[in-house]
Amino acid sequence: MATEQDTAELTQRIEEALRGSDVEEAAKAIASIHPADRADLYERLEPELQEAFLSVLSTEQMSELLDYLKEEAREVVTARMPRATLALVLDRTSHDVAADVLRSLPPSDAARVLSAMTTAPEISPLLGHADESAGGLMTRGYVALHPEMTVQHAITFMRLRKPLADEAYYLYVLDAANHLQGVVNLRELMISAPDTPIVEVMTKDAITVEPGTDQEEVARLIQHYRLRALPVVDEDRVLKGIVTADDAMEVASEEATEDMYRMVGLPSDDSVYAPIMVSARRRIPWLGINLVGAFLAAAMVAVFEDTIAKAAALAVFMPVVAGQGGNSGIQSITIVIRGLALGEIQPEDARRVLVKEVSIGFMKGLIFGALIGAVAWAWQGEPWWGLVVGLALLLNMLAAGLFGAVIPLGLRALKLDPAIASGIFLTAFTDVLGFLFLLGLGALLINQLT
Amino acid sequence: MATEQDTAELTQRIEEALRGSDVEEAAKAIASIHPADRADLYERLEPELQEAFLSVLSTEQMSELLDYLKEEAREVVTARMPRATLALVLDRTSHDVAADVLRSLPPSDAARVLSAMTTAPEISPLLGHADESAGGLMTRGYVALHPEMTVQHAITFMRLRKPLADEAYYLYVLDAANHLQGVVNLRELMISAPDTPIVEVMTKDAITVEPGTDQEEVARLIQHYRLRALPVVDEDRVLKGIVTADDAMEVASEEATEDMYRMVGLPSDDSVYAPIMVSARRRIPWLGINLVGAFLAAAMVAVFEDTIAKAAALAVFMPVVAGQGGNSGIQSITIVIRGLALGEIQPEDARRVLVKEVSIGFMKGLIFGALIGAVAWAWQGEPWWGLVVGLALLLNMLAAGLFGAVIPLGLRALKLDPAIASGIFLTAFTDVLGFLFLLGLGALLINQLT
Repeated sequence: MATEQDTAELTQRIEEALRGSDVEEAAKAIASIHPADRADLYERLEPELQEAFLSVLSTEQMSELLDYLKEEAREVVTARMPRATLALVLDRTSHDVAADVLRSLPPSDAARVLSAMTTAPEISPLLGHADESAGGLMTRGYVALHPEMTVQHAITFMRLRKPLADEAYYLYVLDAANHLQGVVNLRELMISAPDTPIVEVMTKDAITVEPGTDQEEVARLIQHYRLRALPVVDEDRVLKGIVTADDAMEVASEEATEDMYRMVGLPSDDSVYAPIMVSARRRIPWLGINLVGAFLAAAMVAVFEDTIAKAAALAVFMPVVAGQGGNSGIQSITIVIRGLALGEIQPEDARRVLVKEVSIGFMKGLIFGALIGAVAWAWQGEPWWGLVVGLALLLNMLAAGLFGAVIPLGLRALKLDPAIASGIFLTAFTDVLGFLFLLGLGALLINQLT
Repeated sequence: MATEQDTAELTQRIEEALRGSDVEEAAKAIASIHPADRADLYERLEPELQEAFLSVLSTEQMSELLDYLKEEAREVVTARMPRATLALVLDRTSHDVAADVLRSLPPSDAARVLSAMTTAPEISPLLGHADESAGGLMTRGYVALHPEMTVQHAITFMRLRKPLADEAYYLYVLDAANHLQGVVNLRELMISAPDTPIVEVMTKDAITVEPGTDQEEVARLIQHYRLRALPVVDEDRVLKGIVTADDAMEVASEEATEDMYRMVGLPSDDSVYAPIMVSARRRIPWLGINLVGAFLAAAMVAVFEDTIAKAAALAVFMPVVAGQGGNSGIQSITIVIRGLALGEIQPEDARRVLVKEVSIGFMKGLIFGALIGAVAWAWQGEPWWGLVVGLALLLNMLAAGLFGAVIPLGLRALKLDPAIASGIFLTAFTDVLGFLFLLGLGALLINQLT
């Protein structure tokens, strides 16, 4: 293969050839790298070179590119493509990608492209499903066997049918009305005696999902049960399509990215190479939400402005109480969000998770409260300072554990994404409460402090 | 299959049977759920019931359990198992898991167990590799073909060899000295004419890794190129083993969890169901690092205690400047860490990423600086307040963009994990600098403010 170094060198050569409008050289170098690397290269090119890059690709290469591109980039590419060309290209891409592209077009355009496609009969049934569901991920290109076949029949049938790589690992045994009877994997077919009836090698109780199942759940099932493909059936167990493991792996990776992004208030479609203005426009609204939290915290401080004027050292402990509480809560919230995403936390586990995070918050509060309290006492030479600062930190870390569990569990109970802006909500809570505890205790005991 | 509801019901029945010491009922219910669900159930049981659960399992079920358990739980289970039993169990698990377990035992125990294993010749060569490398992930159970074989020979050979499911998708063509000549996938074998020579159906330029390649890179390659297995070869292209896609998917998921955990200073082996004391003990040291940052921030505030005593309203803006800067930087750092993990950011892209994040930081600073500056002016009725607060926020958001890119890129350049405690470092920087900018400007312009 082209090694990593070769690929790095080749991509540089492609960039230079495109810059110098050397079409022949560019085409040659493009042909010699893997389609996955072509997609990477395309996403990193400057906009002018992206145009040049696309103009060099063959129909085959263009359909491979669509298969490997991220959704956003793919939509930009297909939006501008002549409709007749697009039909040719989509005929060669995987079914789920073709359906995604058609869904992203204006309806009249989609209808026109679809009518020009030879794979229209396979793609049309996919269009009714939501993009992020099992129905939106599935392909119709599975291999179907009849229950009366033998292993030898099945092998001969495979030879004639020549399925694509992704679709060939499991074979599906269907009755005359397309009800799923069982699943045979290619390996079992290979190692069984040729005259064995298919019904004897098939697995009858295959794991299935319905077309409406969320893609995150689909990915979780494929990963959990270590499947290579997952059949999608309707309520009557009629086979509608299959989701393959490589799509699931991509979904799992995207969902992990999305959770990381959402926690900190990044839109899930932001990326390292999005243009600066696009990224800025996407990130600013979330920081606006953060600003509301910051204003609430500021308002809390403003309530105690007189107290601070009398005992300015309280302001010194503000970042300790708020920061230590915030980061403690972020530990809890991260572990709960990831546990929810991986399916480790089921609804019945909520109480147990809550108790654990609050208990740990309390323990952390005891330890760090005692420590900071001692520092405050030593610095100000007055035990009351230790009490105010230490108790404020204890209370704030306890609250941080509580909110760290309650925010994601509550969002999930409301059927919302548990990760959404949760870091921003949490730090707003720990800031506001931290200042309330610290400055409120300070105000109560102001005569002891000054 | 057992549907999700069935499984939930069955796991409850298992728990009750174990609690009531009804061994027969427990064994029956355990046999009827998927090994993946057994592992989940085991990890969630209370310690006493875990013991009872293990005692009910057959050797076969025990080896399946080890295959599906997370590393930590697996080590606890195997550490206590009689050595003779362990040898029987490990003979039935996948090679990489058996090697992992043997590596976790005291060397004398490992030698004793290995000598009792029939698969010792396959497992021994794996023991020299680091757990988190390609060598530590690989299995030796690949199917090797000779270059002189035909498709029909290969099929007959497969029938005799009966490889495991994970190992059967790709077949490896090796010369007499085990040098990798090419790779054939099972589908190509099925659909080619029986008398075709193997060398005509094989892919010659297969993507390979070396035993020392980090597991994160292995997972990235499998995902990037959408492979089902990746051959591991030494510097002479002698085939050492293969890494399968389901292992890669697990690694990718673990690495995503690890990155999320590390950013917030959670140890990567923490989990939702770790006992409270264990989790507390693991999280506290990281909060200790955070405390150092908080103390630095506090020290910065202490420098300006007199200024705050004169203009206590400055304390009101402290959480706004620090919090808005911190969350802005967290956006940058998250996007850079994820970009590095997914291989989207290569060393040559560092400058471009840095410029982008600093530019966005500047834009965010302009917008929010103007906004907060206006609020400060309006509230205090004095334009100088607007200047101090607005400029402090602008500078802090600029710094946040800079550190958000520099911290992970710098850690990566030093060959460290870019995620490690990076959120803690970042908020320490933005707190300290935010207070310096705000209170420093306040001190300079104190006569205008009061």
